[in-house]
Amino acid sequence: MSGKLHIYGDNRSGNCLKVRWTAEHLGVPYDWTDVDVLSGSTRAEEFLKINPSGQVPAVILPDGRTLSQSNAIIVYLAGLADSSLLPTDLYERAKVNEWLFWEQYSHEPTIAVRRFQKAFLNKPDDEIDPQLLAKGRRALGQMELALAARDYLVGDGLTVADIALVAYTRVAHEGGFDLSDFPNIRGWIARVERDLRIDQAEAA
Amino acid sequence: MSGKLHIYGDNRSGNCLKVRWTAEHLGVPYDWTDVDVLSGSTRAEEFLKINPSGQVPAVILPDGRTLSQSNAIIVYLAGLADSSLLPTDLYERAKVNEWLFWEQYSHEPTIAVRRFQKAFLNKPDDEIDPQLLAKGRRALGQMELALAARDYLVGDGLTVADIALVAYTRVAHEGGFDLSDFPNIRGWIARVERDLRIDQAEAA
Repeated sequence: MSGKLHIYGDNRSGNCLKVRWTAEHLGVPYDWTDVDVLSGSTRAEEFLKINPSGQVPAVILPDGRTLSQSNAIIVYLAGLADSSLLPTDLYERAKVNEWLFWEQYSHEPTIAVRRFQKAFLNKPDDEIDPQLLAKGRRALGQMELALAARDYLVGDGLTVADIALVAYTRVAHEGGFDLSDFPNIRGWIARVERDLRIDQAEAA
Repeated sequence: MSGKLHIYGDNRSGNCLKVRWTAEHLGVPYDWTDVDVLSGSTRAEEFLKINPSGQVPAVILPDGRTLSQSNAIIVYLAGLADSSLLPTDLYERAKVNEWLFWEQYSHEPTIAVRRFQKAFLNKPDDEIDPQLLAKGRRALGQMELALAARDYLVGDGLTVADIALVAYTRVAHEGGFDLSDFPNIRGWIARVERDLRIDQAEAA
C-alpha cells in the first residue's frame, strides 16, 4: 500500500483496536483520528460521509476510498499484504470467516455490549439485560472448547480470527465475565498478546 | 467440488436459504436435511457435533469437514467455484465483506428477529422490543440510499452480498416492515430474485 491508511477509531473500542493491531502487525503505516463513541460524533454529518452506518472503526484508504466494519477491514489489510494472517487455503480461510461472523453475531453483542454498559455507561448489574451474561458465558464456553485442541483458532498460527476474538475477550472481566474458569482462553490470550506485542498493562 | 455438499437447514430461515440459493446458482450438487429451528433439534447432541453453536445453517463438505455461519459458507462456495459472486478485486471483495458483516450485526438482528417474533412466535407487537422496528427501518434506509446509485450492492452484478441481504429483506413485511417507502430496495429485490430464479410465490 503506497501512501497512508487513515483510521478513525476510539482506543477504548475493541473493534477499533483490531484495525490498529492489524496495521501494526503488518507494518502498514497509518494515521489515527480519535473519534469519541460516547460524544455522538459518529452521528455527525462529516463522519457519516466516511461511514453511513455511523460506526467506528472506519478507514480511508490511500486512494481516498472508504471501508468500514472492523472484520472487513482487517481481512482486507491482511489480504493486501498477502500475510499469513489470512490463510490462502480456502477451507482455512472459511474457518477464519466462520469465527469472524460468529464474533459479530454471538460474541461482540454479548461480551462487548455488557462491558460497554458496565464500564462505560456505569450501569448497575440489575439494569443490564441478564441474558447478556448467560449468552456471553456460553460464547466463552465455546471458545474454551475450541482452544482445548489448538493454540490458535485456525491452523497453527495467528490469524485475523485471533485478532478479532481477542479484542473483547481480553477485557471481558470489565464486563463482569470471570475468565478463571477458562484456562485455555487465558493461555490463548497471552499467546496472542505476545504475538501482537500488546502491552498487558493496556488490558486494565 | 467432487461428491455432494450436505446442507442442514430450515427453509423458513433466510440464513439457510442463502446457502441453498448459492449452491443452486453455482450448480453445486447438494443434499438437504431439514432441521426445525422451533423444535430445539439444533441443540441436540448429534447436531452440536456438526455445529457447536447449535445454529443452522451448517454444512458437511464432501470430505467430511464441517462449516457453519451462513455468510462464511456462501463466501466459501463462491470462492471454490471461482465465481463472480465473489469479486477477485480486493477492494470489491472488501465491500462485499463490509455488507456481509453489516448484515449479521445490523440487519439480521433487527429485521429477521422481528419477523421471527411476529410470524413464527406469533408475538403481539406490544410484546416486541420497539427498538427492533426503529433499528430495522434505519437499516433499510441505509440500503435504500446505497441502492439509489447502483443496481447491485457491490460492482455491476450479483454477488454474495446481494444474496445475504435479500434473504430477510424480501420477507421484511412479515416482520411488519413496510417496503412501500423503499422503491430502490423493491427494484433490487426483483432483480436479485430474477437472477436467483426465486419464485416470487415463495415470498409469502
